Amino acid sequence: MSGASRHYTPSIKATTRYSPYADGSHIRDNNHSILGGYIQGINPIHQHFGSGMAIHMLVLVGIGLRVAFIRDFSYSAIGASLLIGGIGMQWTILCNGFISSADGNIYIDIHSIIHGEVSSIAVSVSHGAVLGLVSPLQVLGLTLLHIPIHILSDLLSSRVLKAVDMGGSVSFHLFSAVFGVAVSVVLRINAKESSSKLNFTKTSQLVAYLGSAYLVAFLPSVWASRLIGDDLHRATINVVLATFSASVMAFPASSIAHSRRKFSISDIQCGLVSGFVAVGAVANVMIQPYGALLLGGFGSASCIFARHSIRTYLKSRFGVHDVSCAGVSHGVGGLVGGLAGAVMALVAAENGLYGNSVYQLYPAMSPVAGSDELAEVKKNLIVKAGDGRSPLSQFSYQLLHLIVTTCVAAAGGTVTGLLLRLPFLENLTQDDLFSDSRFWQCPARPPTAHHKRHRLGIFSHGAFVANSNGLSTTYHSIEPPSL
Amino acid sequence: MSGASRHYTPSIKATTRYSPYADGSHIRDNNHSILGGYIQGINPIHQHFGSGMAIHMLVLVGIGLRVAFIRDFSYSAIGASLLIGGIGMQWTILCNGFISSADGNIYIDIHSIIHGEVSSIAVSVSHGAVLGLVSPLQVLGLTLLHIPIHILSDLLSSRVLKAVDMGGSVSFHLFSAVFGVAVSVVLRINAKESSSKLNFTKTSQLVAYLGSAYLVAFLPSVWASRLIGDDLHRATINVVLATFSASVMAFPASSIAHSRRKFSISDIQCGLVSGFVAVGAVANVMIQPYGALLLGGFGSASCIFARHSIRTYLKSRFGVHDVSCAGVSHGVGGLVGGLAGAVMALVAAENGLYGNSVYQLYPAMSPVAGSDELAEVKKNLIVKAGDGRSPLSQFSYQLLHLIVTTCVAAAGGTVTGLLLRLPFLENLTQDDLFSDSRFWQCPARPPTAHHKRHRLGIFSHGAFVANSNGLSTTYHSIEPPSL
Amino acid sequence: MSGASRHYTPSIKATTRYSPYADGSHIRDNNHSILGGYIQGINPIHQHFGSGMAIHMLVLVGIGLRVAFIRDFSYSAIGASLLIGGIGMQWTILCNGFISSADGNIYIDIHSIIHGEVSSIAVSVSHGAVLGLVSPLQVLGLTLLHIPIHILSDLLSSRVLKAVDMGGSVSFHLFSAVFGVAVSVVLRINAKESSSKLNFTKTSQLVAYLGSAYLVAFLPSVWASRLIGDDLHRATINVVLATFSASVMAFPASSIAHSRRKFSISDIQCGLVSGFVAVGAVANVMIQPYGALLLGGFGSASCIFARHSIRTYLKSRFGVHDVSCAGVSHGVGGLVGGLAGAVMALVAAENGLYGNSVYQLYPAMSPVAGSDELAEVKKNLIVKAGDGRSPLSQFSYQLLHLIVTTCVAAAGGTVTGLLLRLPFLENLTQDDLFSDSRFWQCPARPPTAHHKRHRLGIFSHGAFVANSNGLSTTYHSIEPPSL
Repeated sequence: MSGASRHYTPSIKATTRYSPYADGSHIRDNNHSILGGYIQGINPIHQHFGSGMAIHMLVLVGIGLRVAFIRDFSYSAIGASLLIGGIGMQWTILCNGFISSADGNIYIDIHSIIHGEVSSIAVSVSHGAVLGLVSPLQVLGLTLLHIPIHILSDLLSSRVLKAVDMGGSVSFHLFSAVFGVAVSVVLRINAKESSSKLNFTKTSQLVAYLGSAYLVAFLPSVWASRLIGDDLHRATINVVLATFSASVMAFPASSIAHSRRKFSISDIQCGLVSGFVAVGAVANVMIQPYGALLLGGFGSASCIFARHSIRTYLKSRFGVHDVSCAGVSHGVGGLVGGLAGAVMALVAAENGLYGNSVYQLYPAMSPVAGSDELAEVKKNLIVKAGDGRSPLSQFSYQLLHLIVTTCVAAAGGTVTGLLLRLPFLENLTQDDLFSDSRFWQCPARPPTAHHKRHRLGIFSHGAFVANSNGLSTTYHSIEPPSL
Repeated sequence: MSGASRHYTPSIKATTRYSPYADGSHIRDNNHSILGGYIQGINPIHQHFGSGMAIHMLVLVGIGLRVAFIRDFSYSAIGASLLIGGIGMQWTILCNGFISSADGNIYIDIHSIIHGEVSSIAVSVSHGAVLGLVSPLQVLGLTLLHIPIHILSDLLSSRVLKAVDMGGSVSFHLFSAVFGVAVSVVLRINAKESSSKLNFTKTSQLVAYLGSAYLVAFLPSVWASRLIGDDLHRATINVVLATFSASVMAFPASSIAHSRRKFSISDIQCGLVSGFVAVGAVANVMIQPYGALLLGGFGSASCIFARHSIRTYLKSRFGVHDVSCAGVSHGVGGLVGGLAGAVMALVAAENGLYGNSVYQLYPAMSPVAGSDELAEVKKNLIVKAGDGRSPLSQFSYQLLHLIVTTCVAAAGGTVTGLLLRLPFLENLTQDDLFSDSRFWQCPARPPTAHHKRHRLGIFSHGAFVANSNGLSTTYHSIEPPSL
Repeated sequence: MSGASRHYTPSIKATTRYSPYADGSHIRDNNHSILGGYIQGINPIHQHFGSGMAIHMLVLVGIGLRVAFIRDFSYSAIGASLLIGGIGMQWTILCNGFISSADGNIYIDIHSIIHGEVSSIAVSVSHGAVLGLVSPLQVLGLTLLHIPIHILSDLLSSRVLKAVDMGGSVSFHLFSAVFGVAVSVVLRINAKESSSKLNFTKTSQLVAYLGSAYLVAFLPSVWASRLIGDDLHRATINVVLATFSASVMAFPASSIAHSRRKFSISDIQCGLVSGFVAVGAVANVMIQPYGALLLGGFGSASCIFARHSIRTYLKSRFGVHDVSCAGVSHGVGGLVGGLAGAVMALVAAENGLYGNSVYQLYPAMSPVAGSDELAEVKKNLIVKAGDGRSPLSQFSYQLLHLIVTTCVAAAGGTVTGLLLRLPFLENLTQDDLFSDSRFWQCPARPPTAHHKRHRLGIFSHGAFVANSNGLSTTYHSIEPPSL
């Protein structure tokens, strides 16, 4: 940015600006390419527009579907998703800018946009673990606190520990799951009495499944904005194989987990997400097709078994409701993925597995600057100098990444949970849990209809029926205009 | 087209043909590139396939969802969307061809397809304003009349006024909203008695929200087929920021607009669309990130307040039902966008804002042919000669564009509304408003079930219940085969 | 693969491996491009990532929606789609590998992934014809048998008959439809008594429509991975025109087919799919825009009329239920497309229609190796030597392709149907048809609720109502944890 182009800038503009590639005033954008301007066709937007729109779609449509499955709470869930998307995306750009800005300006490009939207999806995962337990103001607070802590955790992992976690099994999924569960523990809401409101239906379960399928189908587009060449090719193969392996393995696992050997659609959904998450950390690594299949299947099955073995305990002991299963599916999947990432670092140096490109995948394993090894490698490939880590050393740092991320998330979630209990954030009472009625205009119907069921005698059937048909058959006219 | 390739063409082919890039008989498509053929990899389809399919998806899936929210009218709404998509797309290609064909042939390429589908989405917006009030034949008439008037209005703006409106805030959204409302005024249907049929449910409201989210997520793909380089980069940043700003701002606005300070999902939906529309006209302009945020938020809030302040009046006074809020959200958003477009033209000439590329954004501001200024500019950038308009002059033309488009749309809508009242177009009676039953095979259930509610005594509960459970619990066998 | 890179490979890895373009150990992926490595930016993944993700989305979301329309069977339908997607995709890769592997390894790249997912969609079409009649184990058996027979049929058509069927009207759609119907005939399930369970609702019909719209909107992305240049451009134009022509033509056809001249949403849906399928075989051929319109419209109308004229007969005579209309829409559309493909081959040689590129479209029509004609053609275009087939000869082979594919599918479906009747595959009893209750955990509600309707007296209304609200108003708490 030349001084000339800055003189028109009032102070508020100084905070957020277009990056050079998006800035019409940049000298390279208003000169012909032969005269020193960019060739417009190679602007990075052309490469990343598709990814950006896929993530945008996921934030606007997919994330909301996934949590909209509680009938009495569907407006709140969709609304919270949209609020988290909107606030989270902007707040991420600002927070990142505060940390990394060199000249006081925050330059926005397509990568900022994608990062912002992905970061807001992480908040949505956390929110999934406390779904139905928090007010809109608390959702706002959760978003504002989650994002800087998440950025901090990411910086710690990538800059200090130099851990490799392309798909974010640990740094995205496990972090969000632990964060959300920690908030849930601190809020310690005993919703036993209100569980009668937690009515699921076949339709709503299918909507939740669709939301999860959207997540699994669209999230890999993020990777397309981070990887190129054989790395992207490998990541695509691995994630598709792992996803389908997870989907298949979820059926026997769900059947085994139930005493009557029946499938559960929630299990299938959790397994699908968990298997997808498990492959994230190693998607761009040479895990081979059979490794992707094993990892997806194992992530899926272990999530389903974990869900059945610890859920009741966590709920009764710690008040972790996790009704959308966001905590368990991202948590178990992230844990499996993190361990797989560590193991793959251990075997990465095996000579035939990568050749020199291992130093591109694990930059910290690259020879130190000035060494003969680096000179040798540079004959064949462009790599940066690293720390010369051994595989065992990288393995240790990957494990440390897993532990540190979990601790930061747990601590961050605890602090966030405590702050969310501040009275001015409109903590929910028992009656408001899993209910839209306090904050949302809903189609009119007799209040708390189905609760009256047992109190109504035979002659009040009229009222009863009007209540009980709930979701689909409560009529209200378009008047009054307040709706 | 050589004579040789034309001899096999019977007369009907002479009207619509593949463009050279899609024509296997074109000499450049059946010769090797070294010998004068095209390099197949740089065929424009590769660049625009993604955009084309995104819009196709929007027409087939998204647009229908947005209007399918009235239970008793969902088949009609989805059906009308599909009919408008099909007829509108083909009719647009023909109308465009009649106007601009040079040699009597209409050459079809991916841009024709995209333009045709976008044009049909405009008709769908108009249709949203008269949703539930028109018969299938009237939908057909609306489509056939809307499209040539829309094309005429666009030509007036782009060729005569030389106004700049990349995202179509005025020429697409405002036009369609005004057109639809004008039709609605002329039809002047007082549906007060029938409003009992206008039953919304939580599920249906969520479906409508999803449809709007689809629109907002997929429509920017159109721009990717129109812009390149920093313009597209900027447009992507601006539209995402404005969309999320709109989504966030909709919450306080909705809360303020309601006496009991609750959120309304319809408000959120209207605000989201309106904020998105508001940024369209200036998406590729240097409005800076904070400008996109302000515009999106302002578009969202003003739509929600407008909706609450004028809706009842418009309905009782003019019979404007606009149940899908298409009129108010595209109308208010378009108005805000149009004004923003005019203001940005006024400040566009400020030197540092663009440099020379201002003449690519506002071609009419480019120096006149043969002038020294043009020669000077051409040293740095390839620009066409323009009219040498001053910023103030361009500002005036942008305002004129706003006024002229509104007038053409109002006049066109009025004429269309009058023609739609012709008796052979199956005008709806009061009983047919907001109802599928006249034109669609519906799952069998006792007619006008819930109307009987108050007439039925306690002993007719069986019938009553069978009625009232409506949407989800009306059973019918797959026989008879007529369904 | 050098010996060095193979020594670390245990035996299980020997079966499936990354293709060179996805293999980090490949010498060209870990060398700098100047030194003989690939230029990472031109890795085919960049070109095909979008297509791959679109198909992935279709398998995970779209296919399931299309069959989830029977309330009591929605879990089974969604689950079967996911199972078919997962098993089918992996099994296709293995089967293809067994057949075509040169060195004992199966190399996986993005094309394997896309082929695998497309192949699993074909199984889903077959499954659509027996929807509600088969158990999960039978779905598994269907998938495992369908895929190798399908691959065999494809090899026969493409290698022996050298028939051209880019969009798979015959080899994909007709094959699957015939296969599924044949299975259905052999299973010969008379579900008359259970048809009371086949309850559709307006919502579920709309979901089925949306699933079909997804299919029609996403499936063309497959072509983008197979075609380039003018062929892809033409295919895109043709498929969009045919789809919209089909959508428009479905309205009058549906109206005519019903005695009361009403539209049926199922008809519209079948017509849309059928018109889309009909253009597949000739999408990349010079059928001209008007040809695409005619074909789409004819495919749509003929499917709707076929549906009404033969459905009752097929059901009562052969037990073909085809409740999702997958059989009739893909079958009739495929037949129309196959005939159109044959006719277009007959007129393909007309000189002006393609020029030399006709030999790229119909490789078997290319002059034989060593001939003067081939030398002449090669002056202008790169073509391979073919069999020198005349148009009439190619026409005959196209017809043979239609007949052979139908026969292989019928035979394969018959054998599969017989094997599926093996007792250990958990054949369904009458009570289990179109019902989730045997294999799935469902929200608790009084069993077979609506059947009791007529047996319940006035004083049992409480139970009755609790039954009748079915889909949306059956409440169950999140406990017990088994769900």
